[in-house]
Amino acid sequence: MTSVSARITAVETHDIRFPTSRELDGSDAMNPDPDYSAAYVVLRTNAEDGLEGHGFAFTTGRGNDVQVAAIDALAPHLVGRDVDALCADPGSLARHLTGDSQLRWLGPEKGVMHMAVGAVVNAAWDLAAKRAHKPLWRFLADATPEWLVSQVDFRYIADVLTPGDALRLLTAGRNGSDARRERLLARGYPAYTTSPGWLGYSDEKLTRLARRAVADGFTQIKLKVGADLEDDIRRMRTARSAVGPGIRIAIDANQRWNVPEAIEWTKALSEFDPYWIEEPTSPDDILGHATVRANVTPVKVATGEHVQNRVVFKQLLQAGAIDFLQIDATRVGGVNENLAILLLAAKFGVPVCPHAGGVGLCELVQHLSMFDYVALSGTTENRVIEFVDHLHEHFVTPVLIRDGHYQAPAAAGFSAEMHPGTLTAYAYPNGTFWTADRALTPETSS
Amino acid sequence: MTSVSARITAVETHDIRFPTSRELDGSDAMNPDPDYSAAYVVLRTNAEDGLEGHGFAFTTGRGNDVQVAAIDALAPHLVGRDVDALCADPGSLARHLTGDSQLRWLGPEKGVMHMAVGAVVNAAWDLAAKRAHKPLWRFLADATPEWLVSQVDFRYIADVLTPGDALRLLTAGRNGSDARRERLLARGYPAYTTSPGWLGYSDEKLTRLARRAVADGFTQIKLKVGADLEDDIRRMRTARSAVGPGIRIAIDANQRWNVPEAIEWTKALSEFDPYWIEEPTSPDDILGHATVRANVTPVKVATGEHVQNRVVFKQLLQAGAIDFLQIDATRVGGVNENLAILLLAAKFGVPVCPHAGGVGLCELVQHLSMFDYVALSGTTENRVIEFVDHLHEHFVTPVLIRDGHYQAPAAAGFSAEMHPGTLTAYAYPNGTFWTADRALTPETSS
Repeated sequence: MTSVSARITAVETHDIRFPTSRELDGSDAMNPDPDYSAAYVVLRTNAEDGLEGHGFAFTTGRGNDVQVAAIDALAPHLVGRDVDALCADPGSLARHLTGDSQLRWLGPEKGVMHMAVGAVVNAAWDLAAKRAHKPLWRFLADATPEWLVSQVDFRYIADVLTPGDALRLLTAGRNGSDARRERLLARGYPAYTTSPGWLGYSDEKLTRLARRAVADGFTQIKLKVGADLEDDIRRMRTARSAVGPGIRIAIDANQRWNVPEAIEWTKALSEFDPYWIEEPTSPDDILGHATVRANVTPVKVATGEHVQNRVVFKQLLQAGAIDFLQIDATRVGGVNENLAILLLAAKFGVPVCPHAGGVGLCELVQHLSMFDYVALSGTTENRVIEFVDHLHEHFVTPVLIRDGHYQAPAAAGFSAEMHPGTLTAYAYPNGTFWTADRALTPETSS
Repeated sequence: MTSVSARITAVETHDIRFPTSRELDGSDAMNPDPDYSAAYVVLRTNAEDGLEGHGFAFTTGRGNDVQVAAIDALAPHLVGRDVDALCADPGSLARHLTGDSQLRWLGPEKGVMHMAVGAVVNAAWDLAAKRAHKPLWRFLADATPEWLVSQVDFRYIADVLTPGDALRLLTAGRNGSDARRERLLARGYPAYTTSPGWLGYSDEKLTRLARRAVADGFTQIKLKVGADLEDDIRRMRTARSAVGPGIRIAIDANQRWNVPEAIEWTKALSEFDPYWIEEPTSPDDILGHATVRANVTPVKVATGEHVQNRVVFKQLLQAGAIDFLQIDATRVGGVNENLAILLLAAKFGVPVCPHAGGVGLCELVQHLSMFDYVALSGTTENRVIEFVDHLHEHFVTPVLIRDGHYQAPAAAGFSAEMHPGTLTAYAYPNGTFWTADRALTPETSS
């Protein structure tokens, strides 16, 4: 009798959209009416354990179908793969996908095609962690430094971070990791909240939500800015008077400004003691961020949710352009590239404060910060994970926030899995929610 | 009787692929087997003139369907538009498309979604030039400086290039433009050829094609390098001995190297007097290119075919990272963004040497260089357009090369239109070429 190894048998995709624009949840200076969406993927296998790998790319509505098409284009690289080999070395898959010489032309390593790679690579990590019966943060923290180094693609970053550097950082990160893991399990990882600060909210709602955030144990909140300076001054004054002087208030322009405007606008808000200015200009403008940072002291500069890959993060660090590096779980090429980015940040000693919110970004990114705390940077000092209280109910193992801290996930995997009912209801355009919605709102002919 | 204005009535897309991988045409260190492809778009109107706007994004095969899906996602922004208004102000369309707040999340302004914008914006310019009965280069060169400035999006570049700067450059560019136009019509625009230098070609074929290039009047050829140093040394020696010392030989690594490797490898080839090293490393690595450039003198540095947008070009210029800026006609957001990039290059005094080849890139980009010569930079000194002798037969008005020079197109439009028979034969997967091909090559079961 021959033993038959398990294979990936299917790559199933879903176009999932939520009607968030109706409440102005998520509204900012560049995203007035997002419909938070996920290009969702499930890797199925013929293994007897019945486990699946789940992953997704977050988008804001229109174009989620393009993102799904990009994930579909990767399916031939997945189907038929040996599951044991995949889970033993997800980095091999990541390199194979980013290296496909024809698909590479569509990036390379940026935009729709790269987020598609991130979605399937993250799904592979979800599967690997489930098979190991561990939450992803622990699966990573328990791995050997040597194996973690093998999971990083050093192409285009080796001038700044060599495999030897990475091994030294990860080996040092093991010192005291048991104690940190216990501390994490007891206390959690610090969070800040953006829920009060969406641009579309009234001053009354801002005040109410800001006070509630403080009552809930958060020590940092965030306000969206950049549409109108007078409004921003009023909202910043409102927020500061709601929370008092001891709470950090970050501000976020979502790329609204040119460089000179970013400097002026930030200075105009500085009397209210903003903690950081986030995305002051184009995420591609490394030198622009460096100029902003040099001119807005003591306000700090943060960016990353739209930074396309490790090569741009490398340069933001080389140029001294940022005080806080904001990784995103679904923008880059998955866990492997985020390992590279966490290592770059550790090498430069720049704190990582992840972007989250959207659909499921909190669920995913907490694992990366928790791994970083336990087994790499070894600290939560000046580090906070963004928290937005939206759409968690659609996940099988939603984040748990207690006293302003993310609680360490206990369930095996990457917390990426949505409820089957959500996939049925919010599939676009023919899920039950959307068909019922259209029945209520007859189309007008134009 | 009311006059009814013409509207865009349809956005028709085609997935066109050519089996170029079979001959190793186009093979380089990162693209061993490209199948040159086009995600092709036709804007149809209900105007009585029956004119259409044609455009496309060039890809290398797999993923061309994703690129088509991205163009399809833009159709709702096009259908119903007033044709006169569109042709009077294509910049308004370009800004609208790059600014769509939901689609923007998929970039912003990079990768698949941005190339889709470029394809439809270029199609709009094709239509506008056809309606003006002018080839695009002349349509641009005849426009007023003020109108050209109105076509540029200064967002994220205004710290370096203001509308006032642009107006000054374009106004200065009118001096002597009549004489330059006549000279262009008489002589053409200088070209160099990559046809001899593909990585997959034998030394015998390299020698034969290099000699033919010189006989055909070219004064510069290009060799692909980066896969194996010993091979590159042999091929570079072969090429140099084939063409003699008076012909420029550029080398092109297609992003194969890390920064330190790029420096070492280029130095190892320097005894054969390479003119420029192209794409030595990641197109995203601005600081890396600056380091390479500082270390490989007198070899010059060129890049651009994979540079995603004007923001990255701005920084390459700010950082002194390049000697030659290589625009591409279908990588960025169309003619409007290429106008911004030509203006940035003019501001910094860096020569523009366009990337071409692929499918129809020669046909398109010649218009941009010819406009630049007649009405902006005013010179062809140290400027050459890449030429590759592939696939031109599929175009209604193919490029015409004479004595190493592109001849100025006379036909109205952007030279983007393919023959109807090509669209029928090479539609993937069900065009007549591909169905016949599959009939000849029965699939093997795996």
